[in-house]
Amino acid sequence: MRRVAIIGVGMSRFGELWERSFRDIVISAGTEAIEDANLEGREIEAMYVGNMSGGRFLAQEHIAALIADYSGLASINIPSIRVEAGDASGGVALKEAYIAVASGIHDIVIAAGAEKVTDVGSAMEIMNSSIDQEWEAFHGATLASLYAMMARFHMHEYGSTEEDLAKISVKNHRNAVHNPKAQFRREISVEAVLSSPYVAEPLKVLDSAPISDGASVIILASEDVARKYTDTPVFIDSIVQSSDYFALQNREDVLEMRSVRVATRKALKLARCELRDIGVFEMHDSFTITEMLLYENVGIAEKGKGHELVREGEVELGGRTPVNPSGGLKACGHAVGATGIRQAAEIALQLRGDAGKRQVDAERGMVVNVGGTGATAVVSVFRR
Amino acid sequence: MRRVAIIGVGMSRFGELWERSFRDIVISAGTEAIEDANLEGREIEAMYVGNMSGGRFLAQEHIAALIADYSGLASINIPSIRVEAGDASGGVALKEAYIAVASGIHDIVIAAGAEKVTDVGSAMEIMNSSIDQEWEAFHGATLASLYAMMARFHMHEYGSTEEDLAKISVKNHRNAVHNPKAQFRREISVEAVLSSPYVAEPLKVLDSAPISDGASVIILASEDVARKYTDTPVFIDSIVQSSDYFALQNREDVLEMRSVRVATRKALKLARCELRDIGVFEMHDSFTITEMLLYENVGIAEKGKGHELVREGEVELGGRTPVNPSGGLKACGHAVGATGIRQAAEIALQLRGDAGKRQVDAERGMVVNVGGTGATAVVSVFRR
Repeated sequence: MRRVAIIGVGMSRFGELWERSFRDIVISAGTEAIEDANLEGREIEAMYVGNMSGGRFLAQEHIAALIADYSGLASINIPSIRVEAGDASGGVALKEAYIAVASGIHDIVIAAGAEKVTDVGSAMEIMNSSIDQEWEAFHGATLASLYAMMARFHMHEYGSTEEDLAKISVKNHRNAVHNPKAQFRREISVEAVLSSPYVAEPLKVLDSAPISDGASVIILASEDVARKYTDTPVFIDSIVQSSDYFALQNREDVLEMRSVRVATRKALKLARCELRDIGVFEMHDSFTITEMLLYENVGIAEKGKGHELVREGEVELGGRTPVNPSGGLKACGHAVGATGIRQAAEIALQLRGDAGKRQVDAERGMVVNVGGTGATAVVSVFRR
Repeated sequence: MRRVAIIGVGMSRFGELWERSFRDIVISAGTEAIEDANLEGREIEAMYVGNMSGGRFLAQEHIAALIADYSGLASINIPSIRVEAGDASGGVALKEAYIAVASGIHDIVIAAGAEKVTDVGSAMEIMNSSIDQEWEAFHGATLASLYAMMARFHMHEYGSTEEDLAKISVKNHRNAVHNPKAQFRREISVEAVLSSPYVAEPLKVLDSAPISDGASVIILASEDVARKYTDTPVFIDSIVQSSDYFALQNREDVLEMRSVRVATRKALKLARCELRDIGVFEMHDSFTITEMLLYENVGIAEKGKGHELVREGEVELGGRTPVNPSGGLKACGHAVGATGIRQAAEIALQLRGDAGKRQVDAERGMVVNVGGTGATAVVSVFRR
């Protein structure tokens, strides 16, 4: 297996992009990444596309070949592969692209993620297709209500509060102010979060990531090829995908995301480093409780103590373990299939020193991308 | 890159399986494959699942993690990846699984394909999501009508007839009689095809593959591991995916499937053999014209002479280049995301000598799996 580096990143703005088509946002992100990598489109040998629900959002399946064509790459007949794993689709696409380069099959590969959600009405209903239709949704559960149960349980068992969760949202909004691609570039107050309407008690509108339009693209290359294109390659030291019981009810402990625990342990081992070596994190905050549970399951907090990290400010930009300098899913935006790629792009910018006013000084970064309530997790370690 | 072998195959029956659920058919195919390979489920290290449209057929995305769970593999947290490329989803899943083993990342990997289509009403409409929504479907085109245009053009340019196409359907039905998993195990006559109603002139109901329920599973292992489990490994000598312009209108020649041509050339080169070394083929006959165009684009017929192969009986079971001994998509059934895996499973059975009364004597076999009108193609070469 060869070492693999990120040589280019690009992304569209995230948000409600009513005036732009799916193709349009993907192409703009791709063009930015290709310019960033300083290469020609024709040098790309394969493409992996994370997309959750083109079939339902756009009535369009077979979307990877479509994107290859609209990127001008049909003329060179590259393989283009869509992968899907709920909101971990982007992370899984990145992993498959990584394998394609690490294995020696391809030298330069695109990992893209994209979702266009504003063209149909029932985005929340479609998001619920990432949970178990027969054993969860059929009985009235939604993605939000499952996370709400986890939040309730955490509050009951460990004494976390709605205010703790609110502070995660406030932090992510504060970070997003400095992210030109973010959907919500404005600060919000704890009071604003606490007074926003419940989506599924105790989770409120402002505990919940938006469902956004957006695309993000990363260009990967083998180490030797990467050196030709950039002086600031960011290496993917490891990227590990893992699974868990699909329905929440089948897990021994609903606060234990075993997919995340297993993937984190393996990712650190493959990257030959410890958690304390990681200086910056992007973690999947589909809801504020998701981010807090990830603190515990990744291991930057002990079990039942995620909220203490929040109270102590450790996860802030100036803290010991900064989480979501981009603004996270909550404030940068959650363009479902794009999210795993967007998270990795943020870490690449951070490690290259290109993150502007949200810059963290770090040698290594970690991304945690989660599908649904954790049936899929992708954890990756990056190094400059 | 290591050599990769098929050590087990399994499949559900194909057809209208009203009384069986998606999970049920996948698990039954998986169980058969695991028994065929003579291993324990726990030895499986990763899973790739080809599925076109779980989101629309079942309101269920994130389907790979769900299948991992229902296979009893959530307890070992394996990565499970859904890939989608229209009706080439299965072929792409097999290719990604192949890479995962060839690269050395995993030793034993499942490649599965599955589709459950009878639970909703608009299967044809969903199938049309494999063509371009903005530039084809919006203007009234359907998958059938695009292939009908190709058929018309071939008839006009090269003198093929509706009877030639009918004979392809008749051949595939004849072969399926000997396939216990086939949806239509009965012969039909040329007259029956010719008198069946038009779907899109000149294509008729009996020129068209059904849209079926079904699942197919293949277990892959590295060569050294494979030797421990079986005396009859079937090697994947190559598997190549390629793309073409998405919408038919953008191709220079609508009868030229460049994705197929490019993938075939590369697959033969990687497998270090010539087309004449291939003794048995499974080709994507979503419509009879699809199969006939594949003769030409794979190269077993010259351009414009696909119908001559039919007239001369070369593609029959006893012919020089037997195509679709399984019955093909037309008669074995087309469980969209399963098809690419099912085709490969048939070739594995053929090369192992386990194909019963439809047995062809061959050392090498080839599978051609196509997405939509050819925007994606996967071509693979197998050897006993």
